[in-house]
Parts: sequence; C-alpha cells; structure tokens
Amino acid sequence: MSTYLIGIDVGGTTVKIGKFLHTGELLSSYEIKTDTSDYGKNILFDIYRSLLDRNEDLSQIIGYGFGVPGPVTNNIVTQCVNLGWENYDIRERFGTLVQNKNVFVNNDANVAALGELFGGAAKGKRDVVMMTLGTGLGGGVISNSIPVEGHNGAGGEIGHIIVDLHNGRQCNCGNKGCLETIASASGIVREFNDLRAELTMPSILDKRKYISAKAIMDAAKDGDQLAMNTIDNVAFYLGYACHIISVTTNPEVIVLGGGVSRAGAFLLNKVANEFREYKFIAVHDTKIILAELGNDAGMYGAALLVLNG
Amino acid sequence: MSTYLIGIDVGGTTVKIGKFLHTGELLSSYEIKTDTSDYGKNILFDIYRSLLDRNEDLSQIIGYGFGVPGPVTNNIVTQCVNLGWENYDIRERFGTLVQNKNVFVNNDANVAALGELFGGAAKGKRDVVMMTLGTGLGGGVISNSIPVEGHNGAGGEIGHIIVDLHNGRQCNCGNKGCLETIASASGIVREFNDLRAELTMPSILDKRKYISAKAIMDAAKDGDQLAMNTIDNVAFYLGYACHIISVTTNPEVIVLGGGVSRAGAFLLNKVANEFREYKFIAVHDTKIILAELGNDAGMYGAALLVLNG
Repeated sequence: MSTYLIGIDVGGTTVKIGKFLHTGELLSSYEIKTDTSDYGKNILFDIYRSLLDRNEDLSQIIGYGFGVPGPVTNNIVTQCVNLGWENYDIRERFGTLVQNKNVFVNNDANVAALGELFGGAAKGKRDVVMMTLGTGLGGGVISNSIPVEGHNGAGGEIGHIIVDLHNGRQCNCGNKGCLETIASASGIVREFNDLRAELTMPSILDKRKYISAKAIMDAAKDGDQLAMNTIDNVAFYLGYACHIISVTTNPEVIVLGGGVSRAGAFLLNKVANEFREYKFIAVHDTKIILAELGNDAGMYGAALLVLNG
Repeated sequence: MSTYLIGIDVGGTTVKIGKFLHTGELLSSYEIKTDTSDYGKNILFDIYRSLLDRNEDLSQIIGYGFGVPGPVTNNIVTQCVNLGWENYDIRERFGTLVQNKNVFVNNDANVAALGELFGGAAKGKRDVVMMTLGTGLGGGVISNSIPVEGHNGAGGEIGHIIVDLHNGRQCNCGNKGCLETIASASGIVREFNDLRAELTMPSILDKRKYISAKAIMDAAKDGDQLAMNTIDNVAFYLGYACHIISVTTNPEVIVLGGGVSRAGAFLLNKVANEFREYKFIAVHDTKIILAELGNDAGMYGAALLVLNG
C-alpha cells in the first residue's frame, strides 16, 4: 500500500527532498545540488537517481510534489529563469521516470505557504497568507487549503503591492513604493539609508561600511533611535499590507517568514500592533504569526500538493 | 432527468428567482416580495410556494443556489441584518421543503461575481474579481471559479481596502480612507463636495440642492471641470485598487458593476488608463470590463453555486 508523500523543493542551488506521512510528519530529508547546466535538463533525473540511491521503494509513494522558483499554471512551469526551464512539463517528464503520474507542481512561494499549513505555524488552518521577507518579498495566498494561483500564476505577489503611493522608492518591477522596497531585507537597508540622509541622526551603525537588515534589526533591539525609526516604518507598512490582505482574502492567519522574520517577537509585535489599529470588524481576529519551518517549508508544502490533488 | 438549476437572489425588498440551464442560459425569472417580519421566518416558505404556484416540476431541478446579503460560511448564513436571519441553515430548512439537499448558499457580492462568470461579462473566465459600485462598494473574488470566502466570510471586501492612507475620509467601518469613501455612489458625492470646498471652483451643479453621483458623472461628461476632477480622482483610486487586487489574486478580468458603473465607457476607460500606469509585467494583461447582467447577476451566480457543488 502506498503510504508516503515526497515533497521536493527545487532551488537554484540545492534541491531539498523530504519523505512525509499524510499527517504532515517529516520522516527523512536530504539535499542534492541543482545542476543548472544545459537548461536544467539533468535536474529531474538527478532527483530520480537520488531516490534510487537511497533504496526508496517507489511503489510505496503516493505521489510527488514540486515547488519551483517561478510561475506555474496547471502544473506546467511557465518559466524558471534560475533553472533554465521554460514551458516545462514536470508531471510528464518526472512521472515517466518514476512511473507515477501523481505529480503536482506549484510556485515556491505558494508552496512555502502550504508548508506552514501542512506542518508548521498554520497547521490545520484553511485560509492562510504567507509573506516571505527575504532579499525580496514573496507571498502566497491560500484559500480553503488551495493556493490562489491567479490567471498568470501571479497570485500572492504581495511584495508588489504599492503601499507608498506618493513617495515610493523604485522597485525592480518598474513601479514605485512596492512593499518589497521597504520590508524586504534590501528594502530595510534602503529605508535606513534614506532615513539617515533625511534625519541626519547619528547611529551606532555609522562606522560600518556594509550594513545589513539584520544589523539594523539588532541595532533597533539595542535601542538605536535611527534603527528603531526604520523598523517602526517597516512595521507600519507591513501592518498596512496585512490590512489590505485581510479585507481582500480574509485569512485566519498571516504568517511572516524568511530571513527578516528571524527578528522574531520584536518585529512580530510591532506589525501586529500596527495591524490592530485598523478597525474593520470582520477581519479583526486575523492573527499575525511567525513561520516555524524555515527553509523546510517548501518541502512540506510540495508534499501537501499531492494530498490536495 | 433533472435538468434545471434554480438561482435565488434574496434581497431586503424582493427575492429574484431564475430557472437556468447548466450552460448559464436563463429560461425564466420572476420576483416575489421579501417578507422580513418575524425574523424572516416566512421567506423560504414563500419561495417554495412560489415554485409550486408556477407548477414547477421539482423533480426536474438539479439544485438550488441562494445569494444572501450577509456573510456566509459553509452554507450557513452567519448574519443577515436586513432579513433577520442569524446562524440560519438554509440548506436544512429549504432542502426539507423541496426534498432536495442540493442547496448552496453564498454572500450576494460573491454570487454577483459568479453570475458575471456564469452568464455575463466574464463568461468562461476562472479568475475574476467584481467590484460593485453602489451606495456602498462591494466586492467578490473568484479564484479558479470558486469564491474566496475567507475565514469569516469577509473575503472580497474590496470597498474596505484603505487607498487613501494619509488624508482619508471616515468610513462606516471605523477606518479612514477606504475605497468605499471615494468610489461608491455616496463616496463620489463626498469627493465632489470636498473638492468644491477645497478648490472654490464654480460648477454647473452649484444651483442644485441635492447632488447625486449620477449628476456628477453626467456633469463630468458635459465637461464641468469640478465634476471632471472628481471623476478623475475616483478613477485614480479605482485604478490603484485594481493594481492591489491584480498582484494579490491576479484575476483575468476585473468587472465593474453596480449603479455607478452605468456611466459606462466614460468611467471604464479612465479606470483602465489609471490601471495601465502600473508596470508589474505579470499582471499587465488583466482587463477591466463592465458588468453585463445588472440586477440579475445574483440569480445567475446563485445558480452556478449548484454546479460548483
């Protein structure tokens, strides 16, 4: 009898592969390198071979889920620039290798959100939004346990909500004032530098040549006024984005993940306080929480794709 | 063989009842008065009796869909203030009357959006957002043909997205600067009056005692500068809301309905032009279109609930 789910998170550097029970329990996991040569044509075979190398009994596998770094519609990868894939049919290719067509594919941000719902901070919830505060700012919107993929696979692009409509900084997407320009790791550094130029205020970070988001967060925790002002601004706009999301898709929880969220309760409490300033009663019990799975979220969510079918 | 769908749009004044083919074709429709006495306890029986009065063969009915003016979760009406219903189980009550448990219930705004998808402007699309610009501003978000209900049934409350974060007018919900305070019929009048106070500019509407959104729209079409400025502001914020929606749920079309949308291409083109100013490439083919079904949208969408199951 088939008993296990395989969740596969394909990143530009490594592929993470996890074996799960249908309850969301992770039994084992490992990583292999991502071979992006020749338009990524070896990646799926490398994954298949790694399963054989580990003597996995493939007849015991219910199905395989993939999270990939790019837009996906109907299990077809539209484009993964980092991997070299374009209009790439993983179900057909990988399904043939493992002789099992229970292969499901979704975008890595959606899959990370699903992961927190399958085995992390949002376990058992059905309506979940995740914001991944990394170098950029990714997002995943889950409605009734299913990702809101959208027409072009661009559902949940929360980092590109324009939150600073009038004085926004330039974003890579072409717009100005996107949430990503303020609340991602790079956005926090830009916010700090802009505030420093504007306020001409001294900071314990003044002597540093390179300033990271983490350094700013730590300085804020240590009471540095300029860093605190920066994080207060970041939290204000994250709280505003949570308001926008809450009236649009009305999640039960909004999960903050990614490297920036390692600031923990310090950041979380500020964002939650900003969010609670908004009054609309129907969404007032939406909770803002921290992600729990870190870099494993993608594996978990990919495995859940199999159960969602 | 069961062949027909019944779509029922329960409003505070009338109940609209339509008989549909599964293709979305409306065969016949009629209205009855909504009896809101005794906490609306007669409404469902009145609907049942109206079907018998019309000699409908109930064995031919696949199922019944209801749109109701209030939040719904899992086919249970949480609260309809206008009807007197609270935690009201329509499936159980109406299903018993018609001896058919294929009874499905959703919020009127979601159902109107589904209606345009079933037989109106968004026919055949799967990812649709509707904004109903009436006295208030309602919304419905449809992902993969299913309404995004949200945790509390407050998904798609687009009128309560705060779009004017810094100088917003008070909204009934308790917040300031909600889209509803600018782009609903009442919002347009408030925008006009505020601009008039601010700009001290003459208008052909100056001699009017009562000014409606329609009068402002007509004056703008006639070239009245103050009215044109008003509608330009309205279109700017509607375009901004379309941007927010497009990166959050990535619909193929955004449908503008409700009384204000009767301004037609005049308003639509302005909103579409504002929306096109935003650059994010993945959502650039989202189209903004006018609703087609008017007050019948609810019946159509309610009927589709039955097919969605």
